[in-house]
Amino acid sequence: MAQIQVFGHKNPDTDTVVSAIGASYLLNQQGLDTKAFAQGKPNAETQYVLDYFKVESLPIISEATSAEVVLVDHNEAAQSVDNLADVTVNHIFDHHKFNFQNATPLYITAKPWGSVATILYFELQAAQIEIPAQLAGLLLSGIISDTLLLKSPTTTDWDRQALPSLARLAGLDDVNSYGLAMLKAGTDLSTRSDQELLDGDAKSFEMGGHQFRIGQVNTVDIDDVLARQAGLETAMKAEGYEDFLFVITDILNSNSKALYLGDTPASIEAAFGKKLVNNVIDLPGVVSRKKQVVPPLEGQF
Amino acid sequence: MAQIQVFGHKNPDTDTVVSAIGASYLLNQQGLDTKAFAQGKPNAETQYVLDYFKVESLPIISEATSAEVVLVDHNEAAQSVDNLADVTVNHIFDHHKFNFQNATPLYITAKPWGSVATILYFELQAAQIEIPAQLAGLLLSGIISDTLLLKSPTTTDWDRQALPSLARLAGLDDVNSYGLAMLKAGTDLSTRSDQELLDGDAKSFEMGGHQFRIGQVNTVDIDDVLARQAGLETAMKAEGYEDFLFVITDILNSNSKALYLGDTPASIEAAFGKKLVNNVIDLPGVVSRKKQVVPPLEGQF
Repeated sequence: MAQIQVFGHKNPDTDTVVSAIGASYLLNQQGLDTKAFAQGKPNAETQYVLDYFKVESLPIISEATSAEVVLVDHNEAAQSVDNLADVTVNHIFDHHKFNFQNATPLYITAKPWGSVATILYFELQAAQIEIPAQLAGLLLSGIISDTLLLKSPTTTDWDRQALPSLARLAGLDDVNSYGLAMLKAGTDLSTRSDQELLDGDAKSFEMGGHQFRIGQVNTVDIDDVLARQAGLETAMKAEGYEDFLFVITDILNSNSKALYLGDTPASIEAAFGKKLVNNVIDLPGVVSRKKQVVPPLEGQF
Repeated sequence: MAQIQVFGHKNPDTDTVVSAIGASYLLNQQGLDTKAFAQGKPNAETQYVLDYFKVESLPIISEATSAEVVLVDHNEAAQSVDNLADVTVNHIFDHHKFNFQNATPLYITAKPWGSVATILYFELQAAQIEIPAQLAGLLLSGIISDTLLLKSPTTTDWDRQALPSLARLAGLDDVNSYGLAMLKAGTDLSTRSDQELLDGDAKSFEMGGHQFRIGQVNTVDIDDVLARQAGLETAMKAEGYEDFLFVITDILNSNSKALYLGDTPASIEAAFGKKLVNNVIDLPGVVSRKKQVVPPLEGQF
């Protein structure tokens, strides 16, 4: 039998990449024959992580070529491989809302925690499987990335417990300094085109019949990104979604502003209780798309 | 905050009832405040189990009245409470195929094992929570019911491992005799009306746009049930489904025959590779709706 392919969502971020590696390790230790893949190149932050812990980047696929697959950090078909409907899902490890159907019973390990890396840490602990230093470094990077160093409101006690334990296993003395350096490595946006910025972490959602695209970028200076507004708007229009919301998040001060193009500005204003000014809406205190952006939008649509 | 309601699917069977009790116990031990309910009266087999282990039957609900709920042994809205869309699902424990969407991250513990009772046994073990003798008796009854005493092809090594362990905890010396008596208690069909027979364990499925109803009844004599064919067909027509397949399973010899009324007999014949004769199709070796009836039908629709 061919190896089971393990992969995260399109536009891979750090948690999706390290979770594919972690889930593949866990399942192989439990007797399966799996291999980790990614649906795209590592972003700058993930590349920093891979370089730091001396790990090769994952081979890239856009279609599964194994009969069985394992999904990490996503469950919706829109975020998965193009031929998901043609393969059997063996296991899902995820921490998102669900929109999943299939034809056969399967394993699902879902918890509403800050990162899938946290879930995998506790699964490995429960199964009494040793976590090598390198994998511990990868998993703690997934936690740091998804929780913005435990500052995001998605952070749970499980993440707070896992991070220092993984740091000990990784032999990382100052996890805070490492985390800030890693997050900053993801915010050098000058070398990325407008379209690359938009697509870097963008996900598609269907809300009340609307095709909604929500991108997010982390920065240390929101105005730096908004200086590129004209070019970003041209690139957003070119993508052709009904609604496009591009969230620009200041990771140092835990605030966001979002650029919106679409045909329902009144719903956006109602969802966040703020006015759009020149297509920009202020989102004070917002850092989490999953917890602070998607739910109010779904409430409106 | 109101207690979180824990419940299984409509037309409750033994595994769905004992799993609601087991999941509520597990979650309460972990610090939640939950209570088990059922979406209907216990069937004859479940009543035998409750009487044997001296457990009250669960209070019945058709709508959730708590803001948060826990689903056991099902995940599809069609099998759940009428107002599922209005409440937040906190956790799902299940062993079926999935067709679930929601708006917020949640816990899902799904495994393709023989019974949800087995999943709960291993969750309790992993959490090092003591299993009282009475609960052990209930959980082993869930395994026996869903796996037909480990004979169904849905049976996994996990079920085979859990059953004797639970029997020891329950102080049950001869689990085989208990299991046969329990299964037979569910097959006294003479006191049940045609409509009760059909609806006893019936579930609705949507397959390729068709509203499909699949019922199943266990017996020790298939001909006994087919002697009531005329009355059963009248009751099936009265229910008004596009397609109705009523599977009659001989639990001693592990065979089934099914009665079919609907507008696509050719698809039924193609799905099972047998001819319908007087609306009846022979299903040798078939005992599992989930594993041997639904998948071939989904392959056709």
